[in-house]
Amino acid sequence: MKSKTAATCGVTLALLCSGASARSSVTIFGVMDLSVMHSKGGNASARTISSSGLGASQFGFRGTEDLGGGLSAGFWLESGLNPDTGSGQLTNTNNQPNGFTGGGSLTFNRRSYVSLSGAFGQLRMGRDFVPTHYNIFEFDPFNANGVARAAAFTFSTVGTGNLPTTVVASNSISYWLPPDLGGLYGMAMLARGENASNTGNASDGNMVSGRLGWRSGPFDVAGALGRTHYTSTATLGDYTHGNLGASWEAGFVRFFALYNLAKVQILGGDVRKHTSEIGAHIPLGQVGRLRLSYARLNDRSSSVLRNANGSQRSSNDARLWGIGYVHNLSKRTALYGTYARIANQGQATYLVSGGVAPSPGRQSSGLELGMRHAF
Amino acid sequence: MKSKTAATCGVTLALLCSGASARSSVTIFGVMDLSVMHSKGGNASARTISSSGLGASQFGFRGTEDLGGGLSAGFWLESGLNPDTGSGQLTNTNNQPNGFTGGGSLTFNRRSYVSLSGAFGQLRMGRDFVPTHYNIFEFDPFNANGVARAAAFTFSTVGTGNLPTTVVASNSISYWLPPDLGGLYGMAMLARGENASNTGNASDGNMVSGRLGWRSGPFDVAGALGRTHYTSTATLGDYTHGNLGASWEAGFVRFFALYNLAKVQILGGDVRKHTSEIGAHIPLGQVGRLRLSYARLNDRSSSVLRNANGSQRSSNDARLWGIGYVHNLSKRTALYGTYARIANQGQATYLVSGGVAPSPGRQSSGLELGMRHAF
Amino acid sequence: MKSKTAATCGVTLALLCSGASARSSVTIFGVMDLSVMHSKGGNASARTISSSGLGASQFGFRGTEDLGGGLSAGFWLESGLNPDTGSGQLTNTNNQPNGFTGGGSLTFNRRSYVSLSGAFGQLRMGRDFVPTHYNIFEFDPFNANGVARAAAFTFSTVGTGNLPTTVVASNSISYWLPPDLGGLYGMAMLARGENASNTGNASDGNMVSGRLGWRSGPFDVAGALGRTHYTSTATLGDYTHGNLGASWEAGFVRFFALYNLAKVQILGGDVRKHTSEIGAHIPLGQVGRLRLSYARLNDRSSSVLRNANGSQRSSNDARLWGIGYVHNLSKRTALYGTYARIANQGQATYLVSGGVAPSPGRQSSGLELGMRHAF
Repeated sequence: MKSKTAATCGVTLALLCSGASARSSVTIFGVMDLSVMHSKGGNASARTISSSGLGASQFGFRGTEDLGGGLSAGFWLESGLNPDTGSGQLTNTNNQPNGFTGGGSLTFNRRSYVSLSGAFGQLRMGRDFVPTHYNIFEFDPFNANGVARAAAFTFSTVGTGNLPTTVVASNSISYWLPPDLGGLYGMAMLARGENASNTGNASDGNMVSGRLGWRSGPFDVAGALGRTHYTSTATLGDYTHGNLGASWEAGFVRFFALYNLAKVQILGGDVRKHTSEIGAHIPLGQVGRLRLSYARLNDRSSSVLRNANGSQRSSNDARLWGIGYVHNLSKRTALYGTYARIANQGQATYLVSGGVAPSPGRQSSGLELGMRHAF
Repeated sequence: MKSKTAATCGVTLALLCSGASARSSVTIFGVMDLSVMHSKGGNASARTISSSGLGASQFGFRGTEDLGGGLSAGFWLESGLNPDTGSGQLTNTNNQPNGFTGGGSLTFNRRSYVSLSGAFGQLRMGRDFVPTHYNIFEFDPFNANGVARAAAFTFSTVGTGNLPTTVVASNSISYWLPPDLGGLYGMAMLARGENASNTGNASDGNMVSGRLGWRSGPFDVAGALGRTHYTSTATLGDYTHGNLGASWEAGFVRFFALYNLAKVQILGGDVRKHTSEIGAHIPLGQVGRLRLSYARLNDRSSSVLRNANGSQRSSNDARLWGIGYVHNLSKRTALYGTYARIANQGQATYLVSGGVAPSPGRQSSGLELGMRHAF
Repeated sequence: MKSKTAATCGVTLALLCSGASARSSVTIFGVMDLSVMHSKGGNASARTISSSGLGASQFGFRGTEDLGGGLSAGFWLESGLNPDTGSGQLTNTNNQPNGFTGGGSLTFNRRSYVSLSGAFGQLRMGRDFVPTHYNIFEFDPFNANGVARAAAFTFSTVGTGNLPTTVVASNSISYWLPPDLGGLYGMAMLARGENASNTGNASDGNMVSGRLGWRSGPFDVAGALGRTHYTSTATLGDYTHGNLGASWEAGFVRFFALYNLAKVQILGGDVRKHTSEIGAHIPLGQVGRLRLSYARLNDRSSSVLRNANGSQRSSNDARLWGIGYVHNLSKRTALYGTYARIANQGQATYLVSGGVAPSPGRQSSGLELGMRHAF
């Protein structure tokens, strides 16, 4: 995602609207991240040009207006990009599987909200990342991007592959705590599926979620929990996602730990995935950084879920190793290389992000060599 | 639509093109308007995050270039937004029902034209609002936006629900009178369906339309008329739309009146809708404004048109009441609340914009509480 | 395309990113080109509003960052526009016929790349024009735009009508020679279809191509060659395109010559088209320019390719005459008129760009009167 990188850059423009405060502005920002990728899945392989290996390729506009009296209004429009092909990404209109829309063109699928801020904190209305994603972004050593992202474990296969609210939610209102609470931070979000009350699935796509964290000196720890309602079917049902993350800046190295539990209550059983991840950032010289990660998936889905060959899903665990190096040419531009490997057990077929699908139980791996340019 | 609001704001940039005049510029502009909405349709209801309750959410670029000698060139690119979901809006390629395109992503569906201006007035080529829409936008007290817009009466059901030229037309040329004619203003527009001469529906999508108005002191009055040709079928046919609007600024209150007649000559009959609307804006203090509206639909469609139960369409009238309050936090940002209710008669099923569909003859209502931020 | 025009304009903005060099910038640019068009195809005709008669309508963002030490990073995002309707253009995700995407909305279909430049030249990664297209753009007197573009001969009918890599390629890496080589210039490009190695068409969409030219005083000459692999079917197969172009600035007139050979090896035969083109630009006064072009298509497709009536394809040659006048109102804005006529032989049905399809062997013609505004 790398929205944090982008947030520190951007072309910021004074608003010439008559009567507008001198402290009002609009910013154009973006990230272009492309890499040469070589991936393997079992015996198959592919050489591709890949996107978003270090930071999520994106393009957007945001602005703030000083309303006086400590109040300010703002907006954020952020479009995901696939710069290897010039195409855009899908958004979702109703937080339900039938609401995906976009057809390969540009949408503001990442963020699209208006905000009102003051001493009370911030209120946002529109489309925004869900609380659990903010946690993954912060505490995954690979910031939820590239071949070494562990989120593939959490968000793949039955019941979670097609869930619209794993990363972003539409039709949402959220409240963010003010920044000066002695290290305490957090947010709460409500999102609506917008079905009429007289339909069979009136509550589908309704989400309740929140995040609470505490930052002090070198320590940062946060937990998030969200629940989206779906009427149970063979592939869908109430979706609950909780995670807990922490990081410790030890000077010569920054350590990360992240635990995710994603559960989908499908008809007659549930999908239940525990993913544990640890990692580190090690500065190398003035402009280099080594990134390391190890993640382990424990699939405790109920026995009603079986593989194609009749064996139980619950034996289908997997492990991920990731190593990467980032070389900063400037604050905005970096070269990077990342290698990741997934070892699948049982009938598992997890693959590195953007990789080639392996046969059940076979390995998946990927190497990315790329450049990220933020503006 | 609130393009007027946007037109007074925007980030205006000097063009650094060598040789460009100092009076040339490009402007980035937009409106983000989101609200919490509760709507009812008969016994059903829905709670949603809605868009464009006060001003049409949009995003665009426009610019002008001083060519010297009183001439100037310009362009306008304006994309409609659904910021509750980050999606875009459809445009239409040929002014015919089969020409809608966009797939939920961004298009410059609202305006996309190049212009040449001088003492003679202005010529525009491309996609632009039709003359009758400019009239509705000016003389509807709710500016054709939100639950209280009366346009739902004019543009719903058989023959008009899927018409591409009710609001915007593609493939158009228009001429605008110069601004200094002692209060007289107006425009004329031609648009093409672009079918080849040897096809059965060669003229489908061709439009001729115009608008003429007069502004003097507190009075403003304008009429517009447009006709789009379509070969008659059971749901489509020549579409004629005329309207007449007026406003009177009486100091403590501004009064509005608007009359619309929309007619579609379908096979063996016609759809004919008369909508009369009156309303007012009442300033409350320095930053508040109360908005009121009452509209009445008289459906005089020919007897060949019958409801599902065999009764005649012509008894299916409806009425709309709207009340709203706008609280300006600044020139660019406002909070607002709007309530509207539609009483359907006979088999009519009209609903407030963005609301829940009622059963025939049942009421529809909606309440929006939102924020509009222009940039 | 007219990217050259756009490249000299645009709104260039200093980056306020802390730490960014003073020589870093982001530029907003675009071209809006619309015309009134009257076209004929045999007995049929159409009057339309057309786009891109003089320069390709487009909209984009680009930027560079000075990294120090002679290095610089850059990005380019360029979206094709249809401003007559506000719609966008398709891009392609895998350089194969099944990869077209976009649905009528905005994509960065023209260019989407990140670059790194230095004394060594420039490296680009992403989506960009193919080498043969750069040659056509330079040496077609009508810059590959409008009714008089000869590219319709090269890129129409069996095997080439649906090829994704005729103009732009996705998933590409390219290397550009540095600008100071005594007139020598050139580039090489690799693009990937991104199919996995264990699929039947593993190499489909893989492209290798290059361009080499030499510029000296009034002379400019360049050749380009590209090959994209496709498994042979009845309509598709390995696609080879070579061209050679030259121009000579003789003071009172600039002469152009361009030769194209496009070949597609379909199952059991091949499509083989030779297009020869000559033309001239003649300055008229300070702001005018006359443009002339004559092109001849020699269709040498193998005898296995037959027309609907059983006759051989190889007799289906065609000729194109084009004449146009450009009147510059400023550096950014021009009025223009172009007339072109195609004489089809045998069963050929070539048509002027945007025109009405003629019956086999009948003429096609088109007249455009338009305005191009760059920003």
